[in-house]
Amino acid sequence: METQGKPIRCRAAVCRKAGEALKIEEVIVAPPKAREVRIKIICTSLCQSDVMVWKLEGPPGIYPRIFGHEAIGVVESLGENVSEVKEGDTVVPTFIPDCQECKDCLSEKSNLCSKFPFSISPWMPRDGTSRFTDTKGEVVYHFINVSSFSEYTVVDVAHLTKIDPSVPPNRACLLSCGVSTGVGAACKTAKVEAGSTVAIFGIGAIGLAVAEGARLCGAARIIGVDLNPDKFELGKKFGVTDFINPRDCTNKLSEVINEMTDGGADYCFECVGSGSLVQEAFACCRKGWGKTIILGVDTKSQLSFTSYEILHSGKRLMGSFFGNYKPKSDIPVLLERYINKVFLILAQLELNLDDFVTHEVGFEDINKAFDLLLAGKSLRCVIWMDK
Amino acid sequence: METQGKPIRCRAAVCRKAGEALKIEEVIVAPPKAREVRIKIICTSLCQSDVMVWKLEGPPGIYPRIFGHEAIGVVESLGENVSEVKEGDTVVPTFIPDCQECKDCLSEKSNLCSKFPFSISPWMPRDGTSRFTDTKGEVVYHFINVSSFSEYTVVDVAHLTKIDPSVPPNRACLLSCGVSTGVGAACKTAKVEAGSTVAIFGIGAIGLAVAEGARLCGAARIIGVDLNPDKFELGKKFGVTDFINPRDCTNKLSEVINEMTDGGADYCFECVGSGSLVQEAFACCRKGWGKTIILGVDTKSQLSFTSYEILHSGKRLMGSFFGNYKPKSDIPVLLERYINKVFLILAQLELNLDDFVTHEVGFEDINKAFDLLLAGKSLRCVIWMDK
Repeated sequence: METQGKPIRCRAAVCRKAGEALKIEEVIVAPPKAREVRIKIICTSLCQSDVMVWKLEGPPGIYPRIFGHEAIGVVESLGENVSEVKEGDTVVPTFIPDCQECKDCLSEKSNLCSKFPFSISPWMPRDGTSRFTDTKGEVVYHFINVSSFSEYTVVDVAHLTKIDPSVPPNRACLLSCGVSTGVGAACKTAKVEAGSTVAIFGIGAIGLAVAEGARLCGAARIIGVDLNPDKFELGKKFGVTDFINPRDCTNKLSEVINEMTDGGADYCFECVGSGSLVQEAFACCRKGWGKTIILGVDTKSQLSFTSYEILHSGKRLMGSFFGNYKPKSDIPVLLERYINKVFLILAQLELNLDDFVTHEVGFEDINKAFDLLLAGKSLRCVIWMDK
Repeated sequence: METQGKPIRCRAAVCRKAGEALKIEEVIVAPPKAREVRIKIICTSLCQSDVMVWKLEGPPGIYPRIFGHEAIGVVESLGENVSEVKEGDTVVPTFIPDCQECKDCLSEKSNLCSKFPFSISPWMPRDGTSRFTDTKGEVVYHFINVSSFSEYTVVDVAHLTKIDPSVPPNRACLLSCGVSTGVGAACKTAKVEAGSTVAIFGIGAIGLAVAEGARLCGAARIIGVDLNPDKFELGKKFGVTDFINPRDCTNKLSEVINEMTDGGADYCFECVGSGSLVQEAFACCRKGWGKTIILGVDTKSQLSFTSYEILHSGKRLMGSFFGNYKPKSDIPVLLERYINKVFLILAQLELNLDDFVTHEVGFEDINKAFDLLLAGKSLRCVIWMDK
């Protein structure tokens, strides 16, 4: 490539201040350093985590910054010592790394890399600097190792998964975060059993991905809980069988679910990010074998359990970060379940990615994606870079 | 039997007041009612749970009471509608029921019977009355469905497991509570993997039974933590490889274990009954896959975790009640691992029951068993009824 080893000037949607509309600006993307890859983004989708941090005035909020972490792209050029991908390869970047060297990445059980521990970092993981500058020469910050709201971005090879280029880009990008997180929480973390009952607290994209995972595992009953009644019709497409709007309940949510399920759901997933909802989930999770799985981010709430409550209930408490999936090995397998749907459809084993994409916009209209998500109108809005 | 259907006068060790020495008295044991069985106790052993409740002046402490819940006996007579055992059968009573009718008992996953939920009850489970009276005609209370500190006792059939009569009684009685609880916590609740690292907080009989379970599962390293240095030598017999006395540590226990294990133990078992020790156990349990298992009873301490801590650590929190074992099906299997030790010994798969029995006394000397346990000198003191 003629751009190899040189900076690239391109368009990026830069956030200059917390909570403000992004501005399409010209930025300079430096060439990739050792173990890094520069990629041309094909399309990207907006996730709740972008919005969550975009609202923050203080740390980890830092500006100017390029958000975006669900995406698909094509390798433009390589830094030194990269053999895993080559120019022209189709790749999915992930906020979670897979260094393939540390004890965690070498273990089948963990997806929490010890070499590059997760943080909402504004820097490249290996050398702690940025590859972005604006036209005035000022640093523009990265977002969780991806920064896909830019025509070009630089990603560490530990954060890249090579995929089959035949997958439609506006489906593949979903595996970059949200859908993998939810499907993995059901299939890999909780290991939902066929015939079981599942309760999902919060059925946005993550919660619906949990439903989709539970459906694939053969759950008999999937109860969706959400304050937004519009989500209910949508949920049916992902296997949700029962709906509860907490506003319609006179009793506590856990009491309602305990009654509906004759003693509690086999699996309860908290997808909102509320400590008190985790308590409710635990309270309506079946004694003897129930699992409560935390997916929602709440860094402040203190959970309140007695030791005896956990000892004597037989219930298990756990979290699920990126669905316990290891990006490089698990994303290609998930995509297979989408690509081969013609063969899988009769067995109800195809992964439903289509219904997550409720909206698509051109890059110039990226702020519409924010409006739609903030209004609770979209699950995933795909942003096409070349439209 | 000539005693069938009639009250039996026999000796029992009655506790008349919290914390006071038991008195060997004559009591009257009523015939078993429907679904009940009267058994002649062969021997019984003293467990920490007897001592814990024996100290309580208020509820669930209630007197006069007959303690004892680890035992073995022979069926003397049957109430109506009992077909599972017959006169002369050798049985092990358990505080935990296995009604074989409810959703939990019919499930392979739960051992928390819904028909007879566990409580520290002074009554028979089915009709809520006592089968014991003293010579003045006053009611004497039961203890957690067993009351084995009596030559005869009445037990609900849901709380009885028929076993092979060839097992030495002073070994079989251990499976009635403590050893099953610990071995099951390692083998069934945690599913300890071969080659893994285990940390056990508190290596009394329960903690050592966890070690024994972990050893049977092939754990490579078993770290025992105890304030009593005498336990350390004993621990080696059950596979304990490393010892920590918290009194010798200048740093926090979790820091010491994190350093020893290069990032945490794969499995941490809390066997003391201290909420703050559960926190320490969780803090030195390996990120990504570690499991913290609560066995110790602490009804008061509030655990303190943030939702994010659980989400992002990949650690799992769970309890283990009677080792998740279902008495009627699992106790006979465990005993097989003891009986067949000649065949299993080369493979290190024999269950070590022998070393749990550190003392044996005759019934008249039952208070010595209390003294030994309170002084931390015994693991299990077997009390023989006919000696």
